Amino acid sequence: MVVTHPTTGDQLNIGLDVTSLPRLRQALEAAESSGCDFVLAPLVHPRYARPVELTPSPSFDAPHPPPIVRSDPLTRSDVELSSAEWQSGIIGKVSPWINTASSSPVVRAASEAAFREEVAYATHLGVRALVVDAPAGNGVRGAGLANYGRCIASALASGMQVASVEPWAVWNTVRTLCDNHANLGLALELSSELPSPGALDRWAAEAIRVVIMPTSSYVTNRVGYPVLSRRHQELIKLLFKYRPFFALSGRPAAVKGGDGMRPYVQYLAHLFGKQPPPSEAEAFEGPYYDYLQAPLQPLADNLESATYEVFERDPVKYERYEEAVRQALLHRTSMALASALPPDIGGGPTPAEAAAAAENGTAADGTDGTSAKDSTIVVMVLGAGRGPLVRATLRASASSRIPVRVVAVEKNPNAIVTLRNAALDDPAWSCVTVVSGDMRCASSSTTARADIVVSELLGSFGDNELSPECLDGAAALLKPDVISIPASYTSYLAPLSSARLHREVRGLGAGDTPFETAYVVRIHKGVTAAPSVPALTFVHPSDGGSNERHVEAAWVAAETNVIHGFAGYFEAVLFGDVGISIRPETASLGMFSWFPIYFPVKTPVLVAKGGTVRMHLWRRVGGGRVWYEWALAEPAVSAVHNVGGKSYSLGLTTG
Amino acid sequence: MVVTHPTTGDQLNIGLDVTSLPRLRQALEAAESSGCDFVLAPLVHPRYARPVELTPSPSFDAPHPPPIVRSDPLTRSDVELSSAEWQSGIIGKVSPWINTASSSPVVRAASEAAFREEVAYATHLGVRALVVDAPAGNGVRGAGLANYGRCIASALASGMQVASVEPWAVWNTVRTLCDNHANLGLALELSSELPSPGALDRWAAEAIRVVIMPTSSYVTNRVGYPVLSRRHQELIKLLFKYRPFFALSGRPAAVKGGDGMRPYVQYLAHLFGKQPPPSEAEAFEGPYYDYLQAPLQPLADNLESATYEVFERDPVKYERYEEAVRQALLHRTSMALASALPPDIGGGPTPAEAAAAAENGTAADGTDGTSAKDSTIVVMVLGAGRGPLVRATLRASASSRIPVRVVAVEKNPNAIVTLRNAALDDPAWSCVTVVSGDMRCASSSTTARADIVVSELLGSFGDNELSPECLDGAAALLKPDVISIPASYTSYLAPLSSARLHREVRGLGAGDTPFETAYVVRIHKGVTAAPSVPALTFVHPSDGGSNERHVEAAWVAAETNVIHGFAGYFEAVLFGDVGISIRPETASLGMFSWFPIYFPVKTPVLVAKGGTVRMHLWRRVGGGRVWYEWALAEPAVSAVHNVGGKSYSLGLTTG
Repeated sequence: MVVTHPTTGDQLNIGLDVTSLPRLRQALEAAESSGCDFVLAPLVHPRYARPVELTPSPSFDAPHPPPIVRSDPLTRSDVELSSAEWQSGIIGKVSPWINTASSSPVVRAASEAAFREEVAYATHLGVRALVVDAPAGNGVRGAGLANYGRCIASALASGMQVASVEPWAVWNTVRTLCDNHANLGLALELSSELPSPGALDRWAAEAIRVVIMPTSSYVTNRVGYPVLSRRHQELIKLLFKYRPFFALSGRPAAVKGGDGMRPYVQYLAHLFGKQPPPSEAEAFEGPYYDYLQAPLQPLADNLESATYEVFERDPVKYERYEEAVRQALLHRTSMALASALPPDIGGGPTPAEAAAAAENGTAADGTDGTSAKDSTIVVMVLGAGRGPLVRATLRASASSRIPVRVVAVEKNPNAIVTLRNAALDDPAWSCVTVVSGDMRCASSSTTARADIVVSELLGSFGDNELSPECLDGAAALLKPDVISIPASYTSYLAPLSSARLHREVRGLGAGDTPFETAYVVRIHKGVTAAPSVPALTFVHPSDGGSNERHVEAAWVAAETNVIHGFAGYFEAVLFGDVGISIRPETASLGMFSWFPIYFPVKTPVLVAKGGTVRMHLWRRVGGGRVWYEWALAEPAVSAVHNVGGKSYSLGLTTG
Repeated sequence: MVVTHPTTGDQLNIGLDVTSLPRLRQALEAAESSGCDFVLAPLVHPRYARPVELTPSPSFDAPHPPPIVRSDPLTRSDVELSSAEWQSGIIGKVSPWINTASSSPVVRAASEAAFREEVAYATHLGVRALVVDAPAGNGVRGAGLANYGRCIASALASGMQVASVEPWAVWNTVRTLCDNHANLGLALELSSELPSPGALDRWAAEAIRVVIMPTSSYVTNRVGYPVLSRRHQELIKLLFKYRPFFALSGRPAAVKGGDGMRPYVQYLAHLFGKQPPPSEAEAFEGPYYDYLQAPLQPLADNLESATYEVFERDPVKYERYEEAVRQALLHRTSMALASALPPDIGGGPTPAEAAAAAENGTAADGTDGTSAKDSTIVVMVLGAGRGPLVRATLRASASSRIPVRVVAVEKNPNAIVTLRNAALDDPAWSCVTVVSGDMRCASSSTTARADIVVSELLGSFGDNELSPECLDGAAALLKPDVISIPASYTSYLAPLSSARLHREVRGLGAGDTPFETAYVVRIHKGVTAAPSVPALTFVHPSDGGSNERHVEAAWVAAETNVIHGFAGYFEAVLFGDVGISIRPETASLGMFSWFPIYFPVKTPVLVAKGGTVRMHLWRRVGGGRVWYEWALAEPAVSAVHNVGGKSYSLGLTTG
């Protein structure tokens, strides 16, 4: 019976780890009666595995079986369970005597032969996965580890799902030897002592398939039930996100709550049931976990209606924009008032005075906004889409009681339809002028120049959807002292460890191109090795300088880890102290409009705890295109990725 | 005028390095009058490069030109020289003020713009190459070096040949940033002090395009002529192998031998002319330098006549085989004699006695060799080809005066034609029986069992043409106490630095396959980071055990270098102390039948001087195939290459 979450319907697999068993069917029935749905069990019965008594020999490092020459069957017959039971009810374990890392050639040869035989049998049965013990007493550099890794790589090549139980450095070595194979997973065994939070985050970013929980990792509470410590609970909740198989091992203690393993299973099911259902943002993000997307090319492409609809639903972004516009209106009004008052009246007007003054002076005369007499503030929305920023502006105007004229500029003819309908249907839109066309070509003669320009042209990396070029291109539409919302934005970079994302990139095709492209992706199986640091900054209105940039960024690694590239984020100042951020350290809670960006590196590189990671990133502009180039500088130099934008660039031309 | 070798006709380019020049034609004529054929010259005249006086500023790290806004031409007109003169007579130099590694953004931007302009102009002119100074005062980790590397990478992407002048670590960083581009070369500047021999070997393995020789690197000999020290001479001779452009720089001293640079040029031409013509082996190898070949598949393929002809010409191999057969015949005869003599006659027969005894006892009776009465030694040649080992055996028989019966087994029906003709035509071949077929299938009933088996089934890595499997398969044809020639063979491995070979492998196609294949290649642009160490050993006749092997090999790097894979060699013991070797440390002089083997690694890895390089290599047998798997273990773990022989294996089936 699979444990099911009471509200979300999500499922959790809990099973029992059995070391030796007379009959698989009995073990499976016992597991089911404890509330479990699978058993983690050796596939080869010890009776078959060791047909002859082991003869410990001083010249070998472990007891070893003689070469296997026998006519009796390898193990129990596959008809003991139905095919469906093998596939859903059993996770296999390789025989414990098998030691492909042995320093004895005889043991190694016998182990390899037996390992191949058991892998073939597991494949024949169709079990979900096969758990292989880590080589005991073999350091990361032990000769045996390479042999162990090669044997696992061979098993993976034959299509088997393998989970390997081990400490991180050994795991990383085996993963590397197996070329980061998709079917290689991790069986994590918990103990009563847990590693540091940083180390746990590192584990969580790995491909955890099985979590083995000994009954000894539980404690007994005051009323006699087995429970987990707070830190264990936090870890289990973290692991729930990745839906591994939980396998309970060891012997049940004398606890309340039922026979045998049942209380342990029930507590785990209880923890799972207590998990809050996903937030709106989490529900939105779920399907995008680790899914690589090419960044939008908003100049070349026109967004579709459904895309607009999704982004308009963001519960945070437009609230922040509204507040930024409100503050900008008050600021603009108070500035205008201050310049209109005699200089001997100090201190300037209060916001309330400014609002009142603005209200009095703005009998909507409908004349051209450039007229000196008309002091109505002109707010220009660049890239208005279907109008969310127009609506935010109208709300800001209403709440501040500062009237505005809104000019909504949009290049997508399909979105123009929506805007013009809103202008016709909604009385609040009477002050809105809709302009169809590219903001960089629209002539200032067609409309009033803007006091405030509002845009949401930001990409995951801030400037990567060409906001700098678009806003620079619209300069002719703006007053010289225009207030830009956003006022500035800065991208951030952090070194990322994510074997999963690197494999996804590699899966996109041969050659360098996939590794010379940046991806928008909701990073799930990944961990940053250090906090993010600032990369590129743009301020608006700009001083007219180049939009090319170069940043050299450096970090100190918090844990030994493999760097697979860099995660990129942005922070934007909308106005004053109102901002939005997707940078993990300062992220706007609940805002889901942007996922991070991922800059891969072709060759992953190991960095030691406390070691330096250093990289360069260039933003280049030329030939009607904008692109990034990047290179790792420490701990190893990489090739410059995407030289001349050869694999990936953003076109400045309207589609 | 290009310097030409008096006997070989090989050519050497010597030129002059000019730092500033009023007129290119005059400089070219001056160079030609000194015996040179090119000049190394700035493409942009300083007059044009600095249109405005430089204004040194305390906030910048170097004087810098203002942004270039001008209407005067960039430099001299391209019609000053003919197109052919530009292409053959000029190697360009980038303007010395250009500093793309500057820490000042203004200098860097101006430098980048000027660099792009000069690269474009060099491409327009079609000059052979463009020399770019290394960034001054910028360590390997300097921020500017990454920018310098990116600029060069951009120039290479536009098709330019670039040579960069620099110390090795800087060079290696730039090469890595440029992704080991084929058009990136090295301009090596000699000084009067030379680095260590190990460091020179490392340089020699790089893509040296230009050697800049200041007149100050010469000394004046007792009679007043400019000459080079012995160490400089050795280096120059080493460099001659790679045919770089030699550019003389600096001012001529008051020396004998002519005006200006002429004596310096003449001395260099003299050294070149003194180079001995290539040996037969060198002449044979020349066309194969750094040319990757798939190893032979002798079981699946039949060699062609021309291939036999080439290998039969080896001046060393068959001489060694003849000596080994001679010693084996003497040994076999003395053994037979010893067993025939009463046990109280000690010491055994001398070789001469053995030869005499053999001669007396061998009235060629033509009866079956398995008859106890016939003591004629049966020598079986397995894989006889067109007969070179048969002839070596007959010569050994003649010189030792020990008669033999020779059985020549060959599977290639085309070679059988040659063998049968020789048996008919050559009276010396009257004792030769030709057997057509696979040695592993030939039945012992068709012929006598062998006392001595002679084969040359060795590949560059010893066992890699399946000698172990072939000889094991022929066991039924051999007496139990057979002498095998070769008696044993051992492969050797050394870590190899060769950016050239790695690039060649990458050029074979996308994906992992090219990097999971071993290549036979005459390594020219490559250097081993440490002496070779033993890998796999096979002894014949074998004990019937498995032919699978595993070796873990480790080295200490003599110099900081990049490891691009492993070079493989073999040593074979033919008989007693007679052997052949292609291992550099013990190589048989003049033997050209084998080039080394190259096992690439997908990701090159930097190893520090004194650091450890460690790798694993497995020889695997299964499913009618033999293959190698290999993995780097230190300084970084790599994926296991060629798991399950997925990219490369040797078939055990006869084609």
